[in-house]
Amino acid sequence: MKTYGLIMAGGIGSRFWPISRKKKPKQLLNLTGNEIIINETIDRLTNVIDKENIFIITNEDYVGPIIETTKERILTRNIISEPSSRNTAACIGYAAMKIIKNYNDGIMVIAPSDAYIRETDKFSANLLSAVKLAEENDKIVTIGITPTYPATGYGYIKYEKDSSQGINIVKKFKEKPDLETAKTYINEGNYLWNSGIIICKASIIERKFKELVPDIYDNLNIIKNYINTSEEKKIIKNIYPNIRSISIDYAILESTALNNEMLVVEGNFEWSDMGSWNSLEVLHDKDEFGNIILGDAITVDTTNCIIQSEKKLITTIGVDNLIIVETADTIMICDKNKSQDVKKVLEILNNTNRRDFL
Amino acid sequence: MKTYGLIMAGGIGSRFWPISRKKKPKQLLNLTGNEIIINETIDRLTNVIDKENIFIITNEDYVGPIIETTKERILTRNIISEPSSRNTAACIGYAAMKIIKNYNDGIMVIAPSDAYIRETDKFSANLLSAVKLAEENDKIVTIGITPTYPATGYGYIKYEKDSSQGINIVKKFKEKPDLETAKTYINEGNYLWNSGIIICKASIIERKFKELVPDIYDNLNIIKNYINTSEEKKIIKNIYPNIRSISIDYAILESTALNNEMLVVEGNFEWSDMGSWNSLEVLHDKDEFGNIILGDAITVDTTNCIIQSEKKLITTIGVDNLIIVETADTIMICDKNKSQDVKKVLEILNNTNRRDFL
Repeated sequence: MKTYGLIMAGGIGSRFWPISRKKKPKQLLNLTGNEIIINETIDRLTNVIDKENIFIITNEDYVGPIIETTKERILTRNIISEPSSRNTAACIGYAAMKIIKNYNDGIMVIAPSDAYIRETDKFSANLLSAVKLAEENDKIVTIGITPTYPATGYGYIKYEKDSSQGINIVKKFKEKPDLETAKTYINEGNYLWNSGIIICKASIIERKFKELVPDIYDNLNIIKNYINTSEEKKIIKNIYPNIRSISIDYAILESTALNNEMLVVEGNFEWSDMGSWNSLEVLHDKDEFGNIILGDAITVDTTNCIIQSEKKLITTIGVDNLIIVETADTIMICDKNKSQDVKKVLEILNNTNRRDFL
Repeated sequence: MKTYGLIMAGGIGSRFWPISRKKKPKQLLNLTGNEIIINETIDRLTNVIDKENIFIITNEDYVGPIIETTKERILTRNIISEPSSRNTAACIGYAAMKIIKNYNDGIMVIAPSDAYIRETDKFSANLLSAVKLAEENDKIVTIGITPTYPATGYGYIKYEKDSSQGINIVKKFKEKPDLETAKTYINEGNYLWNSGIIICKASIIERKFKELVPDIYDNLNIIKNYINTSEEKKIIKNIYPNIRSISIDYAILESTALNNEMLVVEGNFEWSDMGSWNSLEVLHDKDEFGNIILGDAITVDTTNCIIQSEKKLITTIGVDNLIIVETADTIMICDKNKSQDVKKVLEILNNTNRRDFL
C-alpha cells in the first residue's frame, strides 16, 4: 500500500505575533535561521514519502503564499484548499476522502506544518516504524515524543507497553497539565508528548468518521461523490462550512484510544510544537546570561531574554525574562511567562480596527 | 543696574539617550510636548530680562544648532561659544568678564538651559526677588526649590531664616543624599533642592574668582584684556582649554556659603532638573496603571512604565517599571531603577566604534 503525506498548514500562528501575521503565518516563516518551517516539514516527509504523494491542506487564503513558498518541493496540484477553517477533523476527513477516491486507499502520514524537529534521521526511522504498524494493524498510530522535562505547554499521551507484540498501546490523551502533574507524568515514565502526528489508512479514517462522528461523515460523503467532477469546487464551497468544527483528537482519537485501538511509536528526536515565543529557546544558543539574541542588540545587566531585532539596534538595561521583538511596523515587549497573552493584543488590534497589524 | 541672563547650554544630556544625541543634546529636544527645552528657558527669562540682554553660552559644536533653534528669541551675537567644555566655573567666569567689559557691571541671572519649570508666574516673582536681593546685598543669591518629596536625585541646600531681615542664608550645600538622609532633610524643613540658578553681580563673581580660585581668575583676566579686540577669538582658543575644569559649586559657592555670604530665595514653582528618563514623570499624566505613554502603544497588564514610540506601534505584555524608547535607529528597554546605566550603553557604543548611535 502506498504512503501519502498530508501536511496541515491552516494555522495562523498568532502566538508568534508580531512576526507571524495573517498574511504570513508561522509556517511560512524562517524561525530557525535555516529554512522556512513548512519547507523543513516537507523535507522531513520527503525522506520517507515520494514527493508526488505529499499533499498540503490549507485555508484558501494561504494557498497562494504556500504555492509560492513550496513550489520547488510540492506539486501545485497537491495543495488542497479549504474554503474556511473547520479544525483538524474536517481537513483530515476531506483529505482521506480524496485519497480513497483517487487511489482507493493508502497510508496517510498526517503532520502539522509548523513543528520543529532537529534529528531528522531518528524522525525518519520512527515514521517508517509507524507506517509499518499502521499497515499491519489497521489501527491509528501516532508518534509520541519522549519528554525531556515536565512541560506544561504540551498535551501528553499515556501508554502501555505490550511486550509480547512489541507495541505501545495508547491508554489516554491528557490535556496540558500543571507543573506538579507534569512532574508525576515524567516520574511514572509511561507518558509521551502529543506531537499531533497521525499515521493511519485512509479507509480506517473513513470508518472512524462513520462510527464516531456521523454528522461529519455525512457531509464528507457528499463531498466524496463530487471529487474529481466539475462540481467539486462548488460543492466544497457549499458543504465545507457546514462541517462541525472539531479537532481530530476530540472527534476520533480520544474515544479510539479508550477502546485500546490506538498505537504510539516513541519518538526520540528533538521536537518542539513551536507554540509560543518561548519555543525559540530550543532552537538557538544562549549567551552566558541566558539571553537569545537574534539581530543587533547591546545588553547591559540583562538576563534570560529573547531579543529579535529587525532593523534597529535594541539596547536593554537591567531587565530579565523578557521577549523583545521588533518588526517593520511594531515592537513587542512581553514577559516570558505571559507570552500566551499576545492574543489579548490581537483582540485589542481587532476591536480597535487596527487590522493592518494582525 | 541692568540684569543680564546667562543660559548655560553646554551639556550633552547623555542620560536622555537614545533621544538625546551628541548632535542633538537634551536642551534642543522637546521633551514636554510643548516647546524645545532651551526655548522654554529663554521664554521664562524673557518675562524678567530684556531679550537683548539674554546670552547663551555653549560648546562651539552646538553654536550652529542653538542659533537655528533659538533664532526667533535670541540675538545671534548673544550666543557665546566655548572652544571646549570646561565645566560651569569657566563659563560663568568668562561671561562675567564679558559683561564687565561691555557694560561695566550688571546683575547676572545664570540658569541651566535644560531644567523644567511649570509655574512660570511663580518663577518670575521668585526671580525678581532674587535680583533685588543680589543688587541690594552684594551677595550671591540662588533659588532653592521647596522639596515635595525626599528626592535622592537632587543636591540640597541647607539654609537658615534670618527673620529680622526677611532673608534666607545658605548654610551648606549637600550632595545627592540617600533616601534616609533625604527624609531627615524633609522632616527638618530647612532644606531646599539646589536648582543651579544663581543671581549675582558680575563684579562679585569676578571678586570671588580672584579670592577663591586665583588660577582660574588669572586665565580669565588674560581673556578679559582681549574681549572686543580682533584677537579675542585666538586668545580664547588658546587660553580656555587651560582653565581648570571645575563646577561653580566647588570653585565658589560652597566656600562662600560656609562664610554665610550666600542667600537663597525659596522657589515654590514645580521644577525638575530633567536629569534622567524618570524626570518625565513630572511632565506627563499617567494612565490608571501608572504608565506614561507618548506615541503609539498598546499595553496589556503593564504598570508604571514610560513608553515613547517614534514610528512603530509598541506593545507591552506583563511588564512593570520599564522605560521603553524608540528612536529612528534604536530601541531602548531599561529598568526605571537602572536608568543611570544608560551611560554603560554609551561606553559600549564608544568602545565598539558605533559612534553613529552616540
